[in-house]
Amino acid sequence: MGKESYVHYGERLDDLQCNGYYLIQDPDWFCFGVDAVLLSHYAKVKDGDKVLDICSGNGIIPILLSGITNGLHFTGLEIQEHNVDMARRSIALNRIENKVNMVLGDVKEAAGIFEAASFQVITANPPYMIGQHGLTNASEHKMIARHEVLCTLEDVVAAASKLLVTGGRFYMVHKPFRLPEIIAVMREYRIEPKGMRLVHPYVDKEPNMVLIEGVRGGRPRMKVEPPLIIYTEKGIYTEEVLNVYGKNE
Amino acid sequence: MGKESYVHYGERLDDLQCNGYYLIQDPDWFCFGVDAVLLSHYAKVKDGDKVLDICSGNGIIPILLSGITNGLHFTGLEIQEHNVDMARRSIALNRIENKVNMVLGDVKEAAGIFEAASFQVITANPPYMIGQHGLTNASEHKMIARHEVLCTLEDVVAAASKLLVTGGRFYMVHKPFRLPEIIAVMREYRIEPKGMRLVHPYVDKEPNMVLIEGVRGGRPRMKVEPPLIIYTEKGIYTEEVLNVYGKNE
Repeated sequence: MGKESYVHYGERLDDLQCNGYYLIQDPDWFCFGVDAVLLSHYAKVKDGDKVLDICSGNGIIPILLSGITNGLHFTGLEIQEHNVDMARRSIALNRIENKVNMVLGDVKEAAGIFEAASFQVITANPPYMIGQHGLTNASEHKMIARHEVLCTLEDVVAAASKLLVTGGRFYMVHKPFRLPEIIAVMREYRIEPKGMRLVHPYVDKEPNMVLIEGVRGGRPRMKVEPPLIIYTEKGIYTEEVLNVYGKNE
Repeated sequence: MGKESYVHYGERLDDLQCNGYYLIQDPDWFCFGVDAVLLSHYAKVKDGDKVLDICSGNGIIPILLSGITNGLHFTGLEIQEHNVDMARRSIALNRIENKVNMVLGDVKEAAGIFEAASFQVITANPPYMIGQHGLTNASEHKMIARHEVLCTLEDVVAAASKLLVTGGRFYMVHKPFRLPEIIAVMREYRIEPKGMRLVHPYVDKEPNMVLIEGVRGGRPRMKVEPPLIIYTEKGIYTEEVLNVYGKNE
């Protein structure tokens, strides 16, 4: 079958500039952004690792990770059926069913869906906003992707804590304004924050994302990395971002 | 009396490039660094504020703050008698006894020395290193300044929590590798981390300092600022640092 045969009416097919992989996205739904791409490159997946992505949306992170790392297997957990359906078709059209799968389910029930301590790596690009704060008239499915309606920061970290092996690594991208809560909740659930990188649109601007690494049962000592700067000037990506992104934008 | 008459044998007199102020330092003891200067400029002291500096050493922070802000009064709390003695002579030679004073005492007993909830601002440039970690053959007084021998992170935050008014502001400079502990301890003592700035020697290097702002009884929401970069290239300060430092190095 041709790639296009996997794509339903109203959806689009995006070239991921990685292994020839494509991703089905629905422009009416939440489409992935630079945060998912940066998180995929920030996460350290070692050869043979089993990886779970929580709040997986249209599957961008497990699909990308399967292309750029040598992990053994990648699972996406997602609560919205249309997202799971699109992700499964993306997995099929990329012919990666042997190493990527998508599970329809609620992060709050993740400990019942998967075996405890069964992943070496867990990633999450969860909803950033608290409750319905800052909410305008977004559609319900976009709201679920952006706001903590069905899943809170604590739900994500609690699930990761149960499902990671001791010494397993947790990678999350989030908003810097929530950093104190993120750190406090991770420590509460015994995922010690061990690494952090702030993402700034320009070198002289406040960060608009934070990449964070935690280790299940790790000892306190955080490595804070150099700032990740997106643009040198308006519309011009920095060399680092160009290297991450390929040339696809 | 001339300034020099305040200086004892073996000590030196450093021009602070601020209001014509000088500071007495003993080269055999801990001398202030860029961290104390950056903290003094990071702290927001409003007109009429009463300010306490914990782990005050030779008094650099209260003396500098008295020069660059319109706070009402500045107190330094310091446990080593030689430091207190030098600081008192610096205060006298700068003729600022009316707004700066130095107290000899232990941060662990600060709640007995000062009235509860009596400061609008508390600053701290405490020892960075845990226990005697990384310790070589430093002298005992330098060890006390650098290592948590007489005073831990928790001692500092606990004292600040008791002595700040509700809504009062806590400013600390510390090492980024301890950020998770710093945030956890501040929250434990009800000083919500509200602001943070990482200090990087160069834009592409890891930070070697973190400036943090907390508010006693504040609500969770942190403002992370643009990175503070010290050098554009070897030996050349960035414009921002030159503005902070004057031209004194």
